[in-house]
Amino acid sequence: MPPTIPSPIDWTRDHGIRILDQTRLPEEEQYLELHTIEEVAEAIRSLRVRGAPLIGIAAAMGVAGEAGRGGSGEAGHDRLPAIRQACRTLGATRPTAVNLQWALDRICRRAESAAERGEELGAALVAEANAIWEEDRRMCDRIGEIGAALIPTGSTVCTVCNAGALATGGIGTALAPVYVQHRAGHRPHVIVPETRPLLQGSRLTAWELHRSGVPVTLIADSMIASRLRLGDVRAIFVGADRIAANGDVANKIGTYGLALAAKAHGIPFYVAAPTSTVDPATPNGVAIPIEERDSDEVTGWRGHRSAPAGVGVWNPAFDMTPADLVTAIITDRGIVKPKDVARVID
Amino acid sequence: MPPTIPSPIDWTRDHGIRILDQTRLPEEEQYLELHTIEEVAEAIRSLRVRGAPLIGIAAAMGVAGEAGRGGSGEAGHDRLPAIRQACRTLGATRPTAVNLQWALDRICRRAESAAERGEELGAALVAEANAIWEEDRRMCDRIGEIGAALIPTGSTVCTVCNAGALATGGIGTALAPVYVQHRAGHRPHVIVPETRPLLQGSRLTAWELHRSGVPVTLIADSMIASRLRLGDVRAIFVGADRIAANGDVANKIGTYGLALAAKAHGIPFYVAAPTSTVDPATPNGVAIPIEERDSDEVTGWRGHRSAPAGVGVWNPAFDMTPADLVTAIITDRGIVKPKDVARVID
Repeated sequence: MPPTIPSPIDWTRDHGIRILDQTRLPEEEQYLELHTIEEVAEAIRSLRVRGAPLIGIAAAMGVAGEAGRGGSGEAGHDRLPAIRQACRTLGATRPTAVNLQWALDRICRRAESAAERGEELGAALVAEANAIWEEDRRMCDRIGEIGAALIPTGSTVCTVCNAGALATGGIGTALAPVYVQHRAGHRPHVIVPETRPLLQGSRLTAWELHRSGVPVTLIADSMIASRLRLGDVRAIFVGADRIAANGDVANKIGTYGLALAAKAHGIPFYVAAPTSTVDPATPNGVAIPIEERDSDEVTGWRGHRSAPAGVGVWNPAFDMTPADLVTAIITDRGIVKPKDVARVID
Repeated sequence: MPPTIPSPIDWTRDHGIRILDQTRLPEEEQYLELHTIEEVAEAIRSLRVRGAPLIGIAAAMGVAGEAGRGGSGEAGHDRLPAIRQACRTLGATRPTAVNLQWALDRICRRAESAAERGEELGAALVAEANAIWEEDRRMCDRIGEIGAALIPTGSTVCTVCNAGALATGGIGTALAPVYVQHRAGHRPHVIVPETRPLLQGSRLTAWELHRSGVPVTLIADSMIASRLRLGDVRAIFVGADRIAANGDVANKIGTYGLALAAKAHGIPFYVAAPTSTVDPATPNGVAIPIEERDSDEVTGWRGHRSAPAGVGVWNPAFDMTPADLVTAIITDRGIVKPKDVARVID
């Protein structure tokens, strides 16, 4: 974790989860304790906890905490239906990020094996959730090391949304290479598009980079193409919510436009994601379900309406960047060409 | 003017200007009366009155009103220095839109000829300002008629910012073709990007189209590329703040990214602008001065900060779209290829 950034997630003493409420940043640093599956589901749906890797971790911790709270009076097999129901509830919160389903499948399988072997379910699932979290932390470090080599020393890069410490169990995916260069004493500089409608760029990415001492320049999303033409941006790093088998990438809305602008200016466009983001069951980007969110996100901000009442709104939360616009995918297992991405998880 | 849209500008009874304060839309429909050159300058600088054609009209009316208020006691020649000073003050308010300087040059030349001939200065300049306004109204109608033929009947188009009735003395430039089709009983549908940082898309374009009964779908700027991929957008219409002699176009920030996305999807990209927007003295887009505005526009909205204090901001108000991304320029004198644009004003 970069210095001075608080962890976006942790355990409470009683098998609950303590999260940094990311909807309140940067104005307030407020923490919430979640003690039921429904509370965890609400926190994921309303983006209090967000970022593809982090919602996988949060969901796994939510199910494990639920199992831990159940005590040890009941046999593991009798508790499996409730565990499976918890996984279904959390799996239905957000459709696009595949890490969520990946983590839930893993925790559910572990519950089944623990019940089979007569292990204590709570302890087994808390250990599994911690393993998912710790693996994510290490994956971030590895992505950071690999990606840092792709940034000309001390130069300017551009990202979108937040794929940093606030989105993962570690130093982030897209921002990990920046943190690794920064810690090495180089001076990377990050162009941060604000990322409407929910402003994860300005509220979260600018916040965590600024607190870590990394120089930031905030821009509106509409300024991306002009900024790339200026010539100072040497590489783009974005995260991913799901990578299809053919290398197409679903990520925050705006990523596709950024990729088109990068191509027009000959700037390398890198997707940084743990292998859990790769979904071999999804053949291509068209098959990735894209979440559409409430129109209120676009028609206003913090209670101030910016659009007249009654206008139609289209509000997809993600978009799909075709593989041919992606220079390379940086995973914890190395750098791959998009078309080869399915191989890294074999 | 489309039905139910109030005029964004008018005279008061005492040679002042009455403007619709566009910074308050859509929440409030508030009018301001401006009685001094400094008040007009403030209204232009702070975007209470905005849009390249409209600020030209407002500036001309401002100077004419000042002359009108001066009474007829003083000889025209003695008043020329004050007129020239007024033109300089207003010309310095915003650097990018060339219509502003064009209108001021014209009103200043008319002041000189009136003084030369011994005409009453106030009456002469009010008549000249009214002529500029009326010509703009007719140019909008003409652009609308020409451009409407480029929209497949009743289809979907996309614009950016506001180049409509609120930006001109008539039915707009980019929106004029839409209004002409709408009045003819077709059902054009407009995709409106909100246009951060100042949200002229959601606040102004969605407002005027919705009040005129034109179906609107509002999106965040980051959604443009994805929307163009959907396949329903058949043409792009944008306005212009200045068109260089080689056909490069300065317009609201975000226009360049929209043009790149249009090219990637094979969608025609039209620039609609009166001939007063063409600046033969500017050889190409690189020579167009791009206004940079205050960082507060990007770091918050209506008093709510969305970015942490202390982060750097880059906030250009305009960008430059190279001529090769422009399918055609629609002027009041016809449709021209960008490279031929200088010829239409000969």
